[in-house]
Amino acid sequence: MTMYEIITQKKRNAELSTDEINWVVAGYTAGSIPDHQMSAFLMAVCFSSLSDRETADLTMAMAHSGEMIHLDLGGYSVDKHSTGGVGDKTTLIVSPIVASCGVYVPKMSGRGLGHTGGTIDKLESIPGLNTSLSFEKFIENVRSAGLAVSCQTGDLVPADKKIYALRNVTATVDSIPLICSSIMSKKIASGADGIVLDVKVGDGAFMKDIADAEKLARLMVNVGESVGRKCSAVITDMSKPLGRAVGNSLEVIEAIEALKGNSAKDLYEVSVKLAAEMLYTAGKGSAEYCRGLAENAVSSGAALERLRKMIELQGGNAGVIDDYSLFPQAKRKKEVFAAEDGHICGISCEKAGLVSMKLGAGRISKDAAIDPSAGIVFDKTVGDRVKKGDRLAVLYTSSECDIDGIADEFADIFHYGEKSDVPEEKNVIKIIKGY
Amino acid sequence: MTMYEIITQKKRNAELSTDEINWVVAGYTAGSIPDHQMSAFLMAVCFSSLSDRETADLTMAMAHSGEMIHLDLGGYSVDKHSTGGVGDKTTLIVSPIVASCGVYVPKMSGRGLGHTGGTIDKLESIPGLNTSLSFEKFIENVRSAGLAVSCQTGDLVPADKKIYALRNVTATVDSIPLICSSIMSKKIASGADGIVLDVKVGDGAFMKDIADAEKLARLMVNVGESVGRKCSAVITDMSKPLGRAVGNSLEVIEAIEALKGNSAKDLYEVSVKLAAEMLYTAGKGSAEYCRGLAENAVSSGAALERLRKMIELQGGNAGVIDDYSLFPQAKRKKEVFAAEDGHICGISCEKAGLVSMKLGAGRISKDAAIDPSAGIVFDKTVGDRVKKGDRLAVLYTSSECDIDGIADEFADIFHYGEKSDVPEEKNVIKIIKGY
Repeated sequence: MTMYEIITQKKRNAELSTDEINWVVAGYTAGSIPDHQMSAFLMAVCFSSLSDRETADLTMAMAHSGEMIHLDLGGYSVDKHSTGGVGDKTTLIVSPIVASCGVYVPKMSGRGLGHTGGTIDKLESIPGLNTSLSFEKFIENVRSAGLAVSCQTGDLVPADKKIYALRNVTATVDSIPLICSSIMSKKIASGADGIVLDVKVGDGAFMKDIADAEKLARLMVNVGESVGRKCSAVITDMSKPLGRAVGNSLEVIEAIEALKGNSAKDLYEVSVKLAAEMLYTAGKGSAEYCRGLAENAVSSGAALERLRKMIELQGGNAGVIDDYSLFPQAKRKKEVFAAEDGHICGISCEKAGLVSMKLGAGRISKDAAIDPSAGIVFDKTVGDRVKKGDRLAVLYTSSECDIDGIADEFADIFHYGEKSDVPEEKNVIKIIKGY
Repeated sequence: MTMYEIITQKKRNAELSTDEINWVVAGYTAGSIPDHQMSAFLMAVCFSSLSDRETADLTMAMAHSGEMIHLDLGGYSVDKHSTGGVGDKTTLIVSPIVASCGVYVPKMSGRGLGHTGGTIDKLESIPGLNTSLSFEKFIENVRSAGLAVSCQTGDLVPADKKIYALRNVTATVDSIPLICSSIMSKKIASGADGIVLDVKVGDGAFMKDIADAEKLARLMVNVGESVGRKCSAVITDMSKPLGRAVGNSLEVIEAIEALKGNSAKDLYEVSVKLAAEMLYTAGKGSAEYCRGLAENAVSSGAALERLRKMIELQGGNAGVIDDYSLFPQAKRKKEVFAAEDGHICGISCEKAGLVSMKLGAGRISKDAAIDPSAGIVFDKTVGDRVKKGDRLAVLYTSSECDIDGIADEFADIFHYGEKSDVPEEKNVIKIIKGY
């Protein structure tokens, strides 16, 4: 077996054997296969794709490249993963809801990159909160609070770390089987019994159209189920930012508000649906019953208390829940006003994410620092009728960025039209179940 | 401009600008673009291909990556390039013919790799012959003998050296635009006024079918003409080994015999056609007249004397021309006999090349040593009627290889049938002229 032969086979769109895929992953992780051969292989995969069987093999080879976690919690655990979007703070809402209903949520999360945010960055806007828990502390917190959110441990899926870094510089990110293997290898290695996937679709997501989103969702669900995990995927809208806030502390505040019962409709719908799906996956009852459980966890305040406990156990100042002034405060802000009368028919979602990034809320390169106070809070969203001069949003930053220039750029993301031009709202588009 | 963006564009099959292509070639040659990005780009090119304009730009960017030779010979010069085959010793026949007709042949050649041979390896089987001439000595010899054959100088087309080495380990060799740019960048940088390309097609060549061979031929001719070189391509058969000998000294002997007037018909046809095409390119007259010149150069002995002079000027023992025992002699030989009665309808050409390689005549890896005495001399070829027990060929080697096992393998390359099964001979398939 040589890497040259394997690249040639994939270039000719031949199906690779399980042994061949295992050999590639092991060799690349160990360093015996060089980057330039791996990148040629990955590009060939982008063009020739992988069969479902090859994708499952790749996923498992990657999962087994490092530690495979056995949670041993003594109760059902459900993990959730979002493919990434703008203003996506659902983890902060959904995890406490599910934990408060008696299902463990051991959540290993990542940081944001480019126009999308990451849960770890958001949580780190809470003063004192530690997102680098040891595995023992992570499990202890899950047992105690029902949930914990931490960075991945060092030994988890080293193959993915190495392959993802290479994909990121060789324009081989947008291959559905490669995305699937990257996500699912981490989820499977993380050890949860059930996995609920939030596949975002639209302008602000990696998947721009529903057909691709559905393809990815089915592939991930099938891979997970094929190795004995209970899986489902919820395809949700990312044609506009989710909720009203984009940016780290701003999103945590919005999540807290949602758990206090004050949520934007789209954010509430998506969060309750995801929570209900996680509870259903855990065998808590029918879909309808689970939705009721989730809604009740919010209205009773039980979910908010779980979030408080989680923050405390991770060393954070839980006082932020009652006093938002304890969050890092932006030094500068800029209001943006409507340039014309009309109905807002669309908000360019990816551009909104990029504006937030430029304000300091996101990172352009992997090791860049972020500004926890920076971001956007929308007053108006798609469907709202506005008059010229109405305030559309407020931009926040603590950096020396060109806030006026950014505000001008930001104003262009709003698209106006007649009431009849407003697209139908479709927060949860589809649910994909296992085999 | 970033390499990531350029890879993305080529992945989406967008056309790159001249500036972008120049930037890629300059960056990769200088080392600012890493191997893993270049290999992803090359694989994307294998799938998306390049337009004729992009290919011409790539070729010229590569040609200009190093020294551009100005020959300044005071007379017309023609270069010849073969895309590589089994038993292809035409350079050794054609160059002296053309030189003896008053056209300079400044020939920079390469070594063999895999199942195909290289002119430099063949010439080095002549005791004392130096193939690493300084540029000054190379030009001096061309002026004096009308021809010289040397390895490429160090400064010529460094981009091709680096890109080819990468293609060779990343399974990105078989892209027609990349093959074109590799060949033509070297030919253009080498400075000859005219370029005649021998595009081999068939089982023993890189191009397996005529459509691909023609595509490559047209592309190379058009690129050459677009930068002011007179170009044509002769598409020749490589469905069986050319002539009777395969292996370094064995092929030199066959070439000498051909210049003495004792040539296998296929080898004679291809050689005379190529020589005539080179003379035509140099403006020596009509196609028919040039063929007459070429044939006369053989029958008069003038071409043989040019070869003798070339060998002498490069420090070789020209006595080999009259005494073949001066060549390195093989220590072992093995006769192979026909296993059945019938007509030979085919000889697996690539396998014949691989057998020759295993005997020691070729190299598996770039830096392997070769055995100048090793190879095959065929007694019988396609179209011949044989009886069981007739000698088909003799294998030669000086190495400790398993000659009996290789002989068994070799016997399988002959395909027998009825007289009616013998394919029509088609040594020269097509000639492709410029615009």
